[in-house]
Amino acid sequence: MQDAVNLAEKLAQFNTHWSPRIVAGYNGNDVMVVKVQGAFVWHAHPDTDDFFLVLKGEIDIELRDRVVTLCAGEMFVVPAGVEHRPVAREEAHLLLIEPRGTPNTGDPATAAVKVQI
Amino acid sequence: MQDAVNLAEKLAQFNTHWSPRIVAGYNGNDVMVVKVQGAFVWHAHPDTDDFFLVLKGEIDIELRDRVVTLCAGEMFVVPAGVEHRPVAREEAHLLLIEPRGTPNTGDPATAAVKVQI
Repeated sequence: MQDAVNLAEKLAQFNTHWSPRIVAGYNGNDVMVVKVQGAFVWHAHPDTDDFFLVLKGEIDIELRDRVVTLCAGEMFVVPAGVEHRPVAREEAHLLLIEPRGTPNTGDPATAAVKVQI
Repeated sequence: MQDAVNLAEKLAQFNTHWSPRIVAGYNGNDVMVVKVQGAFVWHAHPDTDDFFLVLKGEIDIELRDRVVTLCAGEMFVVPAGVEHRPVAREEAHLLLIEPRGTPNTGDPATAAVKVQI
């Protein structure tokens, strides 16, 4: 069994953007922290919802018909199958939850390798 | 589809302790906020892990063989089947994730009714 996970300490261990690090497991899901900056790719996850909680900074989650802006302390769940593009004007830190093995781009060919830290 | 969920705004809507409010759904799980103070009951969830993230304050998660102390920005997942007792000396605010319908005490007879806000 793990010990307490300090999210800021985990985030201090890396500087790359859009490269989620696994910090815990929950019922077959990866709980991850990620640093983001700039625009990600448009993508969807056909089989899973996508959980975002902003820990620091601010992001836009662009949907095809609107934009959901999230500041620190705000969360949003993108429903399965819904196309979205996260965009961060400045660096932001996020907590993500996805079923283990979910490709972050929606496509295994282009997905980041998720490392446990 | 929901809009952004501001966790502090949700927490400002109620004052009762140990009574989780549902703020979002993720793949059949309830994402909840809760205010806690004092000691909860010893319990376990035989079929599910139990996700805790401290948003404000500090809690101890007592396990039978040790205590995991969590401050704001720290998280812990109690594995399925593991007995635990959350204790908060002063009021603390938590984000919880559990499969929809999980009794917070481990026992449907004594569980809080979880309301969506």
